[in-house]
Amino acid sequence: MNVVAGIRLSAVAAGIRYKGRNDLLLIELAEGGTCAAVFTRNAFCAAPVTVAREHLASGPVRYLLVNSGNANAGTGAAGLRAARETCRLLAGMAGCAMSQVMPFSTGVIGQDLPVDPFAQAIPGLLSGLDAEHWQRAAAAIMTTDTVAKLVSRTVQLSRGQVIINGIAKGSGMICPDMATMLAYVATDAKVPQSLLQAMLNDAVEQSFNAITVDGDTSTNDACVLLASGASGIAVDALQSDDGLLLLQAVRAVCAELAEMIIRDGEGATKLVRIRVDSAVDTAEARAVAYTVAHSPLVKTALFASDPNWGRILAAVGRAGIDGLDIDRIRIWLGDTCIVSDGGRDAGYTEEAGQAVMKQSEIEIRIDLGRGAAHVEVLTCDLSYDYVKINAEYRS
Amino acid sequence: MNVVAGIRLSAVAAGIRYKGRNDLLLIELAEGGTCAAVFTRNAFCAAPVTVAREHLASGPVRYLLVNSGNANAGTGAAGLRAARETCRLLAGMAGCAMSQVMPFSTGVIGQDLPVDPFAQAIPGLLSGLDAEHWQRAAAAIMTTDTVAKLVSRTVQLSRGQVIINGIAKGSGMICPDMATMLAYVATDAKVPQSLLQAMLNDAVEQSFNAITVDGDTSTNDACVLLASGASGIAVDALQSDDGLLLLQAVRAVCAELAEMIIRDGEGATKLVRIRVDSAVDTAEARAVAYTVAHSPLVKTALFASDPNWGRILAAVGRAGIDGLDIDRIRIWLGDTCIVSDGGRDAGYTEEAGQAVMKQSEIEIRIDLGRGAAHVEVLTCDLSYDYVKINAEYRS
Repeated sequence: MNVVAGIRLSAVAAGIRYKGRNDLLLIELAEGGTCAAVFTRNAFCAAPVTVAREHLASGPVRYLLVNSGNANAGTGAAGLRAARETCRLLAGMAGCAMSQVMPFSTGVIGQDLPVDPFAQAIPGLLSGLDAEHWQRAAAAIMTTDTVAKLVSRTVQLSRGQVIINGIAKGSGMICPDMATMLAYVATDAKVPQSLLQAMLNDAVEQSFNAITVDGDTSTNDACVLLASGASGIAVDALQSDDGLLLLQAVRAVCAELAEMIIRDGEGATKLVRIRVDSAVDTAEARAVAYTVAHSPLVKTALFASDPNWGRILAAVGRAGIDGLDIDRIRIWLGDTCIVSDGGRDAGYTEEAGQAVMKQSEIEIRIDLGRGAAHVEVLTCDLSYDYVKINAEYRS
Repeated sequence: MNVVAGIRLSAVAAGIRYKGRNDLLLIELAEGGTCAAVFTRNAFCAAPVTVAREHLASGPVRYLLVNSGNANAGTGAAGLRAARETCRLLAGMAGCAMSQVMPFSTGVIGQDLPVDPFAQAIPGLLSGLDAEHWQRAAAAIMTTDTVAKLVSRTVQLSRGQVIINGIAKGSGMICPDMATMLAYVATDAKVPQSLLQAMLNDAVEQSFNAITVDGDTSTNDACVLLASGASGIAVDALQSDDGLLLLQAVRAVCAELAEMIIRDGEGATKLVRIRVDSAVDTAEARAVAYTVAHSPLVKTALFASDPNWGRILAAVGRAGIDGLDIDRIRIWLGDTCIVSDGGRDAGYTEEAGQAVMKQSEIEIRIDLGRGAAHVEVLTCDLSYDYVKINAEYRS
């Protein structure tokens, strides 16, 4: 794995909840670097999300402090105090302002975050900072993820090569309360903050905002994009060759991490790509894609490898699209057309549908026959293990 | 069970899909009676829904013809022809116009509905008409429902007593493609059609439109309210003592049938009542209630009897309500307050939450602290058996 000049990482076992494994991560951004971030839209956002938003606004950001095992969500005023205190502790020892530290948490909801383990762990965390520690970083933020998720790319820009690394966690948790997703992406390119935020917003829309395991948006979701500038290679405008190349690379890293999250989805046995074409606008395409992606009946049919296409048709029909002309809709399972002219396609055979459904990666394509917008959403199936993972915790 | 004067019923085994059980139901409404109906909003509505809508508009309705085992949905133009043909066959033998017959189907999606079994069964169906056959009728429309669902009430109006009977099926199916719901309610009161439709619309909103097993709206849902007028007791206005009494009785019958459907929900082990109070309007209250009711994480926690209240909080937070002030929200499990002031209520204990979650009937109450609107939605938990029922069919 490549290092990203200007980015150092450190992970230690602070004992916040887990025993015998790293659960506290620090990411350091070189002075002069820029930081962009997006956060959960859940109104009950966790305390660290509120504080991270405030600190991003007052910046400039130097440190990301991430703990696993406790989400510090649903913790009211005490949770905000704890999140701020961890930033204050780190800032005091690192010699920066408290507002230059962004806090992140993932894990069990509704339990007070203990601050003492942070106080004890921070000296070791700071002394352990190393540009090589990407793998350790990816492992430290895991909860019940079954694999550590990291991606590295290089991009050749006009003035030289830059590097983009990313790590993420999500979809299996010590307390599987929701698809708590955290992702950190960093490059050594030099990018102004506003441009960095625009790139992140763009990349997230087609990656982390286009995946779903169960529709349960987390209270703690966050995705951060850092640009250290340490390569000396500057990108100043999105509408330039270099800007587009860097954007494409950021998109690719985010998309790959997002796909890793779905592959590691709770109880998932299949990766399902739902593509909606010929919609009037993106909102309409998303409504159809997510209605299909969240349908328990579609998801259990996928788990069973059952080409039960009536369930897909019914989900499209209830997606709330005004004036939908069902005679113009066509639906494919892989390359097999299943629905046309308002019903089962004349050429469809159960055997052809069965052959697609047996695969571990399945594409469902829905052509609404209305316009030019399209979206693609990634999801997984609904298995016994999803119920098991989410019902048996704490019991 | 009371009979409803002016209503006769008949059920026979036509062999449409099932062997050795009744699968074809006929309900006859006396001449001069009125009929109101509501249908699925699924854009991919089944052929019989389209035809029933047309015939209701041209009426007056004399017969409801209902088959189980085949939904005649996703069947395109051939499905419409078949649905019309069954009405024509019945009308020919019964001596009425084809448009006086409303067809209904429930069962497997996407298979052509055979018309021959209807032709052979209709003579026996007509000769078997009997006012006593409510229980047979409730049984004939079952698919994989585990119990027949029927309800009977009497209402004392100013000029005498009227009767309201209702039957319904839903939530377990031979092809569990969706919560295919059918309900037929009949009274011997004399009610003008427009008033009858108003009463049905009102009653359905708080009963069948306020339940969910899995959020998957059927292509075939329909609910019909018949008024034979055979009692000679007329109700002419909603805003009258008798109108309100009759409306309340229709509401009660629909609510009881709806609750029976949820109790018999696929894999259900618990009945869950979700009440949202103090919303700005009903739409907002419904958005919150259904987000909680459809959350796989909330539903699996209910199955596990796990007072994992963070999942409820997170679902409320992602319901898309603009300007939600989380500090004003309070959430109760039964009588136990779990959330206030943006986090866990100060008086909450795990023991108190556990005591509520162990019950087989659970109320979740969410006070948004914003306005005066409220709704109540019934749902059930998400169990291994839901996945089993919906994954194992056809495999």
